Order: sequence, then structure tokens, then C-alpha cells
Amino acid sequence: MIIDIHGHYTTEPPAMQQFRDKQLAGLADRARRPLSSDLGISDEEIIASVQPQLKLQRDRGTDLTIFSPRASGMGHHVGTEAVGKEWTRLSNDMIHRICTLQPDNFVAVGQLPQVPGIPPQNCLAEMERCVEMGFVGFNLNPDPSGGYWTDPPMIDKYWYPVYEKLCELNVPAMIHVTGSCNPNFHATGAHYINGDTTVFMQLIQGNLFKDFPDLKFVIPHGGGAVPYHWGRYRGIALEMKRPELAQYLLKNVFFDTCVYHLPGIELLTSVIPADNVLFASELLGAVKCKDPDTGHHFDDTKRYIDQLKNMSEETRHKIFEGNARKVYPRLDAQLRKKGLAGRAF
Amino acid sequence: MIIDIHGHYTTEPPAMQQFRDKQLAGLADRARRPLSSDLGISDEEIIASVQPQLKLQRDRGTDLTIFSPRASGMGHHVGTEAVGKEWTRLSNDMIHRICTLQPDNFVAVGQLPQVPGIPPQNCLAEMERCVEMGFVGFNLNPDPSGGYWTDPPMIDKYWYPVYEKLCELNVPAMIHVTGSCNPNFHATGAHYINGDTTVFMQLIQGNLFKDFPDLKFVIPHGGGAVPYHWGRYRGIALEMKRPELAQYLLKNVFFDTCVYHLPGIELLTSVIPADNVLFASELLGAVKCKDPDTGHHFDDTKRYIDQLKNMSEETRHKIFEGNARKVYPRLDAQLRKKGLAGRAF
Repeated sequence: MIIDIHGHYTTEPPAMQQFRDKQLAGLADRARRPLSSDLGISDEEIIASVQPQLKLQRDRGTDLTIFSPRASGMGHHVGTEAVGKEWTRLSNDMIHRICTLQPDNFVAVGQLPQVPGIPPQNCLAEMERCVEMGFVGFNLNPDPSGGYWTDPPMIDKYWYPVYEKLCELNVPAMIHVTGSCNPNFHATGAHYINGDTTVFMQLIQGNLFKDFPDLKFVIPHGGGAVPYHWGRYRGIALEMKRPELAQYLLKNVFFDTCVYHLPGIELLTSVIPADNVLFASELLGAVKCKDPDTGHHFDDTKRYIDQLKNMSEETRHKIFEGNARKVYPRLDAQLRKKGLAGRAF
Repeated sequence: MIIDIHGHYTTEPPAMQQFRDKQLAGLADRARRPLSSDLGISDEEIIASVQPQLKLQRDRGTDLTIFSPRASGMGHHVGTEAVGKEWTRLSNDMIHRICTLQPDNFVAVGQLPQVPGIPPQNCLAEMERCVEMGFVGFNLNPDPSGGYWTDPPMIDKYWYPVYEKLCELNVPAMIHVTGSCNPNFHATGAHYINGDTTVFMQLIQGNLFKDFPDLKFVIPHGGGAVPYHWGRYRGIALEMKRPELAQYLLKNVFFDTCVYHLPGIELLTSVIPADNVLFASELLGAVKCKDPDTGHHFDDTKRYIDQLKNMSEETRHKIFEGNARKVYPRLDAQLRKKGLAGRAF
């Protein structure tokens, strides 16, 4: 079984974006606000909307995608707390409907109603609601300001209520920023990658997993710059009198494989232990086109992994399935309930 | 000849930091401000202060370091424009003295008196002054705010006066942030790397080198996250209908080798063309300790390059010397004047 742990719903029916536009228009002119959060999207429309993802699953030979709302669409920096709460609820409900309609292909991860400057206690009720609906994790935005980084670092106690809830619910967080309203940061080309790099370095500075030994973070986009600069991070940590990163952080921190060329995947899998790498493509995400040099899609990350020589069957299994079951225990439980027990290694 | 293009003066005599402290104390209490910018540092003290760098040059078999003031000490976000101007002048003067006293070991690169929110025209006079003293390049900070990124992106016309002057003077800029006053960003572990990644993505978005075909940027720290995510950047650029990055940016953009482990250097040199990689260590910089796994310093980047199999003698020469002469033409001219003509390839 091949589990892609990082997919976003980027093929929404137009009604969803129209609702969002009305919401934001309503901030300026109350008369324009949506009168109902019932989008009027039918089950058939939802099924039609995810056909591109299903085709890519078939074409590439993957089975299941951990699916969350469009990341750049979370827009935590946009509008008021009430607007964000409504938008989050609606976005998560849509993911829930997809996963209910196509339960063999999608498992749900939620966005949170974060607001810059507002302590994240406001997320706890939505976390509980989502997990009751079968969600297996959340995207947690380290910079709700959208590129100005005005909230405290993620090792600050400010964030602890969210971590307590994640542990209580036994779900991981993927550290994932939303769009950027700072013209310095292109969203998918700078802000996403910087967010990943920034949080990993914060984790070196703090000792978060001493307080939360069961908390699990997935750092997406191949860990930002971290594996490429693994020597720098090991060195900085050692100079701070921290233990080796492998002991200090890698029981709790995992990287996905959203790295869009073979040399990057080779580096990732040679530097980061096999237990900490989870297969992902970021479908349909940052880069949709084909590499003219290979004729294949940049984001067909399975191809890169398949090209790795000397990868043991055990490592392959961990990256494609085993680690996902370990990091997302509620996913594992759902699969087991369906009779998909997974391999024991 | 082996040229290290990225060294900072991080072993200043205490008088220099004491002056800075007085400057900043003077902002709060005018009575504390320094009464003279004469630091009273003797030539002997300066020579003594760079012995650690000279020892590392000898130990590692490098010849010449392109040397600039402590990057995190530039502090463009600290104090007033007048304070920054005085500090910049004094810091550059100190680099000039070092390079005059040890001309076979150091060549000067300057910092600029940048101030957040103040258009960079204020840097032009210092650029001229430094080049008259023999400087061969400048460190240009894309985020004078120190981690809040409040100035325009580097493709904005805001920056054009600096680019015009760089071209007129025939010197490159290393894109280098200073320290971070944003608690989210560790300086050397996040802010530096993010700065590199961010600016490269800005360059994809704009078409700066159409307006400045002779402008040259060095992106340090191995290009931030860029080479690791080269597929992502190629894909994003192609989706923006840009040409291939190799044609579009690599006549003007260069990466250094400040990547502190062998797999990172392998990736850098396999992904980025040999014409665009310049040897550097960031001495004495971000990571001073030894890798307990190898017993060697993390920042001994020459060792990693020396371990690369299948690197041609021509490529080695480019990385260690040829590219530096090409990107820093004033360095090449100085070396030729000394009878060090370099190899023709």
C-alpha cells in the first residue's frame, strides 16, 4: 500500500471560492456577505472535482492520499476571527465529505481557525470536532500573519494548548504556512520552504519534546532547507550543547518527500534516517508541469524514490506506508478496521 | 590558488564591540555615546586578531579570503541612520586595515549603511569610498528590518540605484542578511538560509538581469534551500513561462559552498553548473565545532570538495579560483597586478 501523506484540495468547485469572495467582500460591505454557509455543492460535483487526484493516484500507482484543504487558501491573516472560523469549518467539512464519498482514496487532515495575535486556544473545539469526524491530523501554521512572523516561535508556551490537544487526540501536526501577504515571499517558492526551515531551527533552540514526548510534527517540502544543511544544523545544535539531532528531535520530527528532483530525494534519503521520511507529493500543488528534461511531472516523487538504487525493501515499506501508520495512528486504526493490517517489520 | 570568497571578521578586538555598545547606549543616554571613532586599535592588535583565520588558511591549504565585517553585526535595523553610517564606515575601515596589513591573505568586501524604510541611495557614497580603497564587492542585505521583511523585494526599482552603482563599479553583491530581531528566526540557522532562498525566488519572479545584464549576485550558504529544491524552482519558473533557470538566472547568480556536510556539497555540485559554484567556508562563522563523526570541522568545506570523485581538474579550478576571478573582476585585476595571472581554460 502506498500512502501519500501530503495532498491539498486544490480542485474545489467554483462555489467554494465564490463563498470565500463573498465572505471577504462582506468585510467591506456587509450587504455582500454570504447569507448561508450551504454551498449547494452536490455529492456528484464533489466526486467530479477530485477526479484529477484519482487519476494521478492510478497513473502513479499510489493508493491513499492524506488530504487537507488548500494550504494557501487557509488565509489565517485574512479577515476577522469569525470569518476565519466559518471558512475553516466549511473547508474541513468539504474534506470530510470527500473522504466519506471516496473512503478508499482519501483520509482527512484539517486546517485550524488560527488568527495572528490570538492565542490558539480558539482551535481546540475545531480539533475535537474534526477528530470525531475521522480526521487523522492537522495543518498547523507557524506564521498566521502570512509572512510577517509576528506570533511567538513554536517552542513558546503560547502554542502549548494546541500541543496538549494534539497529544490528547493522538494526532500529528504538519507544520504548514498558508499564503503570503508579504511581497518578499512567494508562497510556494519561498514562504513554504522558509516556514519549514524556520520551525526546525526553533525546535533545535527549544526542548519542546521534553514537555511533549508523544507530540509528532511533520515538516513538509522535504524539510525545507534542513536536510541539505544537515551538517550546519548538527553543528549548531552541538554548539548549543544539545545532543545529536537524531536523538534529540527525530523521535518526534518527520520529513515528507515533496522534493521535485532525483538528487534532492537522494540527499533526503541518504541524510535523514528511513524512520523519519514519509512519502508525499503535495498533489495538486506547487508545481503541476512536466520536467522537459525527463518528460515526467516534477511532482511525481514516487518515480524518484523508485529510481533509488540500494534501497532495501524494508526502507521502501517504511517510506511508503509504515512510517505513515506510525506517525498517524488514527490512520492506522482506520486501515486496520477495514482489514488492512499492514506489514510487521 | 585557492580563494575562499566568504569570510567575516568575527574575531575583532574588544574595542570594536565596546565602541558599538557605546553607540547604542548613546541612543538611550546621549552622555554614553562614544566621543571619538578612533578605536585606538594598533596594527599589532589587528594582526593578532586575524591569527585564527590565518591558521585555518594554513591548516586547510587555502590562500586568500574575501573578507567582510561580521554579518550579524551589521545590524541595519539597530539605531538611527547616523549611527548605522558611522558603524558601517568604521567596520569597513577595519577590513581595509586588515587587507592592507595582510594583503596576501585577505581581500576586502564591505557592508553598506542600509536602514529599513530608507531608500538605498544612502549607500552609494560608501560604495565609492570602499572601491577607491580596493574593495572588490559588497554584502547587500535584502531585509534591513532584521527579520520582518518590511522593505520591497529585491526586484523592485527601489533597489536600482544600488544595482547601477554595483555595475558602474564592476563589483558583485553577496546577498547577506544581518542578525535577526524576530524571535522566530535564529540568525545563522534560519534567517540566513531563508534570506538566500527568498531572494532567489524573487529573482525568478522578476526579470532583473534584463535591466542589469552585468549585475552579479552571490547567494551564500550554498544558495539556501535552492539547490536542494532545484526541481521545484525549475518547475515554478517554467509555469511562470520563464526560460530554464540555467539560461535565465545563472549568467548572473552564483552560489557559494558553505554547506557543512559531504552529501550537501555532492548535491550542490551535481545540480548547479560548475561555472556557478564558488568555494567558501564562512570563516569564522556559523559553526565552529568539529563533527564528532568525522573528527573534522563542519566548516572545513574544502575537505568535502576534495572528497568528490569524478570532479575534473577544470571544474576544481573553477570552483577554487576561476569563478572567483570572474565574479569579482577587481580581485582578478589586483591579483594580476601582483603577477598572479591565473590559469587560462
